[in-house]
Amino acid sequence: MQTVAFIGLGIMGRPMALNLIRAGHPLVAVNRSPGPLQALEAQGAKVAPTPAAAARDAQVVITMLGDTPDVEQVYFGPQGVLSATRAGMLLIDMSTVDPAIARRIAEAARDAGAGALDAPVSGGEAGARAGELSIMVGGDEAAFAQALPILEVLGKRVVRIGPSGAGQVAKACNQIIVAVTLEAVGEALTLAKRAGVDPEVVREALLGGFAQSRVLEVHGLRMLQRQFQPGFRAELHRKDLRIALAAGRSAQAPLPATALVHELLTALMARGGAGLDHSALVTVLEALSGQSDPAG
Amino acid sequence: MQTVAFIGLGIMGRPMALNLIRAGHPLVAVNRSPGPLQALEAQGAKVAPTPAAAARDAQVVITMLGDTPDVEQVYFGPQGVLSATRAGMLLIDMSTVDPAIARRIAEAARDAGAGALDAPVSGGEAGARAGELSIMVGGDEAAFAQALPILEVLGKRVVRIGPSGAGQVAKACNQIIVAVTLEAVGEALTLAKRAGVDPEVVREALLGGFAQSRVLEVHGLRMLQRQFQPGFRAELHRKDLRIALAAGRSAQAPLPATALVHELLTALMARGGAGLDHSALVTVLEALSGQSDPAG
Repeated sequence: MQTVAFIGLGIMGRPMALNLIRAGHPLVAVNRSPGPLQALEAQGAKVAPTPAAAARDAQVVITMLGDTPDVEQVYFGPQGVLSATRAGMLLIDMSTVDPAIARRIAEAARDAGAGALDAPVSGGEAGARAGELSIMVGGDEAAFAQALPILEVLGKRVVRIGPSGAGQVAKACNQIIVAVTLEAVGEALTLAKRAGVDPEVVREALLGGFAQSRVLEVHGLRMLQRQFQPGFRAELHRKDLRIALAAGRSAQAPLPATALVHELLTALMARGGAGLDHSALVTVLEALSGQSDPAG
Repeated sequence: MQTVAFIGLGIMGRPMALNLIRAGHPLVAVNRSPGPLQALEAQGAKVAPTPAAAARDAQVVITMLGDTPDVEQVYFGPQGVLSATRAGMLLIDMSTVDPAIARRIAEAARDAGAGALDAPVSGGEAGARAGELSIMVGGDEAAFAQALPILEVLGKRVVRIGPSGAGQVAKACNQIIVAVTLEAVGEALTLAKRAGVDPEVVREALLGGFAQSRVLEVHGLRMLQRQFQPGFRAELHRKDLRIALAAGRSAQAPLPATALVHELLTALMARGGAGLDHSALVTVLEALSGQSDPAG
């Protein structure tokens, strides 16, 4: 079994690393805060002080970090992964970041004779625990083939989308569609409620037609039942839309509805909802319509 | 079998009227242009010169008209339905109009001792031909029970949403969700294409997760295959969003994404796409990103 350096033991990274240990992979872990490291050490992982130190002991490096600057630091920083990358190694960044970063990492890896993949995920903490994430992969076919046995430990649907950066582009597309559909459902249910019509009956009736979506099913129900504990935190979705908008700027693809929902998520955060599930977007529409209780 | 006055033989009204004749209902038809009247006469319908004349011969009046002013004229005009409405009659408006109109018709019907329902549909021309429309009904339970045998000739899913106007509110909610989801899918597929990633692979990958919707399935495919013959015409969807925005104004429910998509449908019409399927909304995003060929 290949030794895996796993960097970033957040809500997603912890169960993913654990699944790799359970599948028999020797694992070297790196994390900013010590708590999750100790927990993983108790499961048999080694601990390394820096990304470079972990990379020196491993054939495969997986990163699962919060945002673009973290990924830049962990790869390109002074004790970064790339300073210890050797020929034949494989670097897999599973964070959600700008596609341009994915291309820069892939280029630097190529210069060192190593492979690199961008492999962002969807499916949330539950998917990470169950090893049932959807994984959208960008990178060349050889690196994808090399990574597949490891990615299949972590995910149920592992799809190569295209060359380096394509995984991040697909993830951005996913986050655009989910966010804008949340807004669509939020506007419809708010209109129904304000117009004196039972939004539960409307949701039920609409699920049978062209308005059907997973968001109407799952998040529409959350909106009706005021189930706003995450789930997926609003602040993370706003971060992902920021990435999507940056990708749109580089690609010269204006994204007007994405930009609008980005601003409405900013309003949700301004109103104290940063840590709520993204379906709490509906409370911003309710506030706009004069109903100001986010829990009500 | 109750005699039905059927007013409005457009693309939707024609097959609906025909299904009622086939189900054995004596039918009196009214239409602005004579062509569809002659065709229906050949199938056994009688023809009346005005809505009032048709209503005089019928127990049930069904209207299927293009827009709010047509409905106002047909009901409240000098030779209108209401001038000939008697106690025990049932008025069913299946047009998509402002919920406020539905409430006005219901009130006037009540004054005459008659019942009234707003019963807008979704499912398009194909659904109308097959008698498989989804019908969203507003009005009291007694009128709904009286109408059900007739509505079940026309539709497969017939749901009472609530009191008068509730059918129109549900239809507005449906059109909001479909329009804004079209925009979501359009932005995602345009970003993918502009970023050099195969939008077909992205669509396929996203259908398995939270981005799944009927719009991504059906209209996403139309966008990729450039299948922009209607389907549902962009100009009609813009009209429906105008109604939704008016309903939002009366209910004090601001609908920011709906307003945005209304403007983008206006752009589609300005670019010559009024008669294209609403999925051609994606061509506006392509134009914004510098690709200007609507057919390309």
